[in-house]
Amino acid sequence: MSSPFTLHKKSSQCPARRGQVATKHGVFQTPIFMPVGTLATVKGMTPDSLKEIGAQIILANTYHLYIRPGHELIREFGGLHKYMAWDRPILTDSGGFQVFSLRDLAKISEDGAAFKSHLDGANLFLSPEDAVSVQEAFGTDIMMCLDTCIPYPATRDEVIKATELTGRWARRSRTAHNRESGQLLFGIVQGGMHAHLRAQAVEELVDIGFDGYALGGLSVGEPKEQMMEMTEKTAAIMPQDYPIYLMGVGTPDDLVEGVYRGVDMFDCVMPTRNARNGMLFTSTGRLVIKNAQYQRDQRPVDESCSCYTCRNFSRSYLRHLYMSREILSSMLNTIHNLHYYVGLMAGIRKAIEEDCFLEFRKDYYAKKENL
Amino acid sequence: MSSPFTLHKKSSQCPARRGQVATKHGVFQTPIFMPVGTLATVKGMTPDSLKEIGAQIILANTYHLYIRPGHELIREFGGLHKYMAWDRPILTDSGGFQVFSLRDLAKISEDGAAFKSHLDGANLFLSPEDAVSVQEAFGTDIMMCLDTCIPYPATRDEVIKATELTGRWARRSRTAHNRESGQLLFGIVQGGMHAHLRAQAVEELVDIGFDGYALGGLSVGEPKEQMMEMTEKTAAIMPQDYPIYLMGVGTPDDLVEGVYRGVDMFDCVMPTRNARNGMLFTSTGRLVIKNAQYQRDQRPVDESCSCYTCRNFSRSYLRHLYMSREILSSMLNTIHNLHYYVGLMAGIRKAIEEDCFLEFRKDYYAKKENL
Repeated sequence: MSSPFTLHKKSSQCPARRGQVATKHGVFQTPIFMPVGTLATVKGMTPDSLKEIGAQIILANTYHLYIRPGHELIREFGGLHKYMAWDRPILTDSGGFQVFSLRDLAKISEDGAAFKSHLDGANLFLSPEDAVSVQEAFGTDIMMCLDTCIPYPATRDEVIKATELTGRWARRSRTAHNRESGQLLFGIVQGGMHAHLRAQAVEELVDIGFDGYALGGLSVGEPKEQMMEMTEKTAAIMPQDYPIYLMGVGTPDDLVEGVYRGVDMFDCVMPTRNARNGMLFTSTGRLVIKNAQYQRDQRPVDESCSCYTCRNFSRSYLRHLYMSREILSSMLNTIHNLHYYVGLMAGIRKAIEEDCFLEFRKDYYAKKENL
Repeated sequence: MSSPFTLHKKSSQCPARRGQVATKHGVFQTPIFMPVGTLATVKGMTPDSLKEIGAQIILANTYHLYIRPGHELIREFGGLHKYMAWDRPILTDSGGFQVFSLRDLAKISEDGAAFKSHLDGANLFLSPEDAVSVQEAFGTDIMMCLDTCIPYPATRDEVIKATELTGRWARRSRTAHNRESGQLLFGIVQGGMHAHLRAQAVEELVDIGFDGYALGGLSVGEPKEQMMEMTEKTAAIMPQDYPIYLMGVGTPDDLVEGVYRGVDMFDCVMPTRNARNGMLFTSTGRLVIKNAQYQRDQRPVDESCSCYTCRNFSRSYLRHLYMSREILSSMLNTIHNLHYYVGLMAGIRKAIEEDCFLEFRKDYYAKKENL
């Protein structure tokens, strides 16, 4: 099958690569960070403000939207894009990670995941086929297969069982998928912290054939070095003519390191969640806005930043808003953090184009050390 | 002294009038509604979004900003406009109403108001002179005299005492005011529900001489008819060549009725607070967005509304955001409600210009009856 991925430039220095992915709602440039809009809204951002900071694609959550407001309602509205007034690409996860993170409420069988709604305790069930048809109702550009995310640590036996089940579910997902819709379907590589199990998983997924391949089950509590080792070893053997997506990752450092190891796509709640908690990302490190040192600080959060927040407001004012629990605090902090993430990826893309990603990476760390 | 008010057109049908007020930060058109930005932010709105809905002037609260972040800090930043990145006019109330509404924490004497901070219980004191100098530190365009707001009901004796004290404080405020700053100072008419006491208060304030005159101590629990009677009788004898401001009022009906009785300026937390509580204003009445009837409703909040919210989102989506307690719920609802208030006032101004305010008023009520 044809790939939605086009390679623009391969780094001569490392596996980093510059490309693009074509979807029903247009093309996005890689490497890319996708802001998270769990419930059909990136918290604190209007669609207009998302465009203003340069977001090219966002992520929404199948599990949450399946529970509320429901996929049939969203289908009635002509899909998620129209429902939330976002006309650029949307990727929806499959619900697998939520079933994992809410595992006290979930029970996994060969058929699929039975779980209780975290809202009202209602009994719900999601099979791999259901996850596809729910995402088809959403009309999202990139759908993810239902997978079984593996806790860390896990026994070898648990990992094997879950990885094999994910493989069988992937095959069922592919069969259920109506390719006529133009929606892309990505497979998810599990395999825990075992490189050879991940290699087997890649092999099986490639045999089934997907529009892109994701690294799942990372950033679940394992040491950072292990996450990076798994990413590096697995990305190296994933099909290079398809997009490679590292799910649920991560910090700015993780993005730089993921790209370094060949990853094209990332998503994480960190920039938005941390914004609401008053933690701001800057080119020289992190800034906790509630700290007393910022009370009379007339400088913007980051003097090298061109976002709406930094163009208009001081650290002092942002601290005042945070201390006063004002809605505008979350709004302005979110604009800044997403602008930082989006800008970081734009810088990464430019560096790969100019084949100086290693210099970019070195410079990135050097700036932080100047803090 | 010269008045900042210019009359454009007087209704031939009633006391309604169309004019403008000139301030340090530009002119605003009357009749006007001022969105409330208690803590140097109109909750849920960026300065840009305020401009987009057409806000010409906003109100901030002396009491709250005096406590946090403090007037000396705001002075360091070059004033409230720079601090909050709002370059259009700002009116600050004096703190009198907050002293009234927090009266368990306050004690009023001839000198001024002693009160405990609602944040940390610290003992604070605000004299009429302090209120002026705090507002001078803010650099706001329109300052209000410290007054003593009278509870409802109150004995005649209480009303007389408080009204007389407000008069003496007004004289001290005028003396303290540095007219060189270009900041305007408004006097506040108290007098409870006694028209002749209000008439006396007007006489005394005019004798002192202010840049505008406000009706205070209304909308404090009295019946609506009484509020309107007091407004009508007092506005009629207030100086017609100066702006007339009805403080803390009110509902859309109150705005229409206030204008009908000759009022130029209004402020109220209702559109912003109700937005956060999911209550939306429309040309045909109020809409409680959480109601189940809107779950699958694909229509915008108000089909005749051109705000960002109504141009892009359905009642169903807004209900989903509200039920999910999303920040975007408060943001989009606030945009809509303020757009409604601002649009209502624009319609009122046009009707007075065309000398058909009575027809406008009739039409306004007729639309609501069609609900």
